[in-house]
Amino acid sequence: REPALLRNVPLGPCSYKWNSRYLSNSVGSKSVNILVSSHARFDFVHKNFLNRTLPFNELIRRCSGMGKHTGDHFLSEREFYQLRSPDDRQEDFFKNHKGLQDDFKMPNFIPKEKLISTNLKINSADVITWTQYDVMDTVLCQVQGSRRVVLFPPRDSSKLYLQGDKSLVLDVDQPDTAKFPLFPMAQRWECELSQPGDVLFIPALWFHSSICKDFGVAVSCLWRHLERDQYDKKDPLHHKDPMAATRAMDLLAKALKQLEILPDDYRQFYYRMMINKVNEKLPRDFVQ
Amino acid sequence: REPALLRNVPLGPCSYKWNSRYLSNSVGSKSVNILVSSHARFDFVHKNFLNRTLPFNELIRRCSGMGKHTGDHFLSEREFYQLRSPDDRQEDFFKNHKGLQDDFKMPNFIPKEKLISTNLKINSADVITWTQYDVMDTVLCQVQGSRRVVLFPPRDSSKLYLQGDKSLVLDVDQPDTAKFPLFPMAQRWECELSQPGDVLFIPALWFHSSICKDFGVAVSCLWRHLERDQYDKKDPLHHKDPMAATRAMDLLAKALKQLEILPDDYRQFYYRMMINKVNEKLPRDFVQ
Repeated sequence: REPALLRNVPLGPCSYKWNSRYLSNSVGSKSVNILVSSHARFDFVHKNFLNRTLPFNELIRRCSGMGKHTGDHFLSEREFYQLRSPDDRQEDFFKNHKGLQDDFKMPNFIPKEKLISTNLKINSADVITWTQYDVMDTVLCQVQGSRRVVLFPPRDSSKLYLQGDKSLVLDVDQPDTAKFPLFPMAQRWECELSQPGDVLFIPALWFHSSICKDFGVAVSCLWRHLERDQYDKKDPLHHKDPMAATRAMDLLAKALKQLEILPDDYRQFYYRMMINKVNEKLPRDFVQ
Repeated sequence: REPALLRNVPLGPCSYKWNSRYLSNSVGSKSVNILVSSHARFDFVHKNFLNRTLPFNELIRRCSGMGKHTGDHFLSEREFYQLRSPDDRQEDFFKNHKGLQDDFKMPNFIPKEKLISTNLKINSADVITWTQYDVMDTVLCQVQGSRRVVLFPPRDSSKLYLQGDKSLVLDVDQPDTAKFPLFPMAQRWECELSQPGDVLFIPALWFHSSICKDFGVAVSCLWRHLERDQYDKKDPLHHKDPMAATRAMDLLAKALKQLEILPDDYRQFYYRMMINKVNEKLPRDFVQ
């Protein structure tokens, strides 16, 4: 399973309708959740952004640079915004705006019966998101603006310096190689989505980061790759790892905990024995 | 903690008394457990050896080449023998022969209060034992004959192709590098014990293999490095890993089992995530 970029996928009327004025008028001043930062590069390590709300039309105004904005700044004169993806606690914005949803025609290769969510993505120019993986298969459908997407295969996770599902390497183009020496050795896919109908398939577990050039509007569609019962029922949008993986990582944490009573040299010896044990499970051509 | 070779350690009268005739006469025809093989290189993978019993004086006769032996061969005209180290089910040979024990003076740096066992080691010429680690601190006191010992540090376990506590690489001098490409990268210590009073300290967890040149007589003394309560009470000779390590490896096995229900690519992804997790625990200078 590998990423695939498709061009000229018919996405329906959104391709020509969704300019800032149309979006603004369609939704109006409904309050939405956003991320805001005074830095273009959103940084989950140092939390250089805030969770806030804005009226939707005000968000569009600020993101698109359409006229002067009316409200106060949250942080500074120059700010960067993203519409926040829905999580478990948030209503599905897209579903509540049937008008917008009717404008969007989902690519026909998506298995509808496995669909989990369809999300509107809106960002101001220059926004750069961190690298992370999802447990869902995803297509990212570009509607307005242009973005570069950088991807890394699941097998190179050890070179990405992860914290949970996110890479600590925030600048994928100029990584700090003293701090992250293995990063440049990770295999890298890149593509540019710049026209309505540019559609990127991101397989589950592939790491991805977006570098947006312009005010951007996109739709992402996420669907289950695994059987329904392999995901946590209490996590309807499947943000979490499959249950078997969560259980495995919990057991591993317990195993690591056990070794804490041993002296340093014993602990390190058995850490390595654990790594050897897991390595035996990997294909022979891959030496960790 | 590193291995250390000491020369001219006073070991008592055994140094000059323990020739084959003396040993034979002292113990007589008492039945002892042995390993026997028609190959000099004992091979735990293909089990090219048998567990058998012999009268002690007959073992000495066969090992030392002293006169013709009287019994039948077990396997072939040319055979190789080792006195079997005591395990949980076997009486402590050395303790039951006070005469021999009185001949041997234990090196004075051994902490007597932590001593677990003192074992007589006897082998015929040319015997090569596989590489393995013990969880005990050990000194190997050479009394008769000459042996080369090859050692590898605990931190290089990933290069030794282990099965449990033993290395699959049986020939440490001419390893099959197509099958074991990492083996030559393991750091290696070597030394030669050729005189009575040559004494080798082997720290717990260090891998070691003996290449014996002659009919060999040695005494190994094993003692606890960790506190008593960190070893399994049901394993009085401490052959097993410390309990915390056993529990950790059991939990790891359960964690690996969890992942079996996932498809191949997910499984491999989470195997790697597990390796990343354990790797985080290791010192930064070591990249697995």
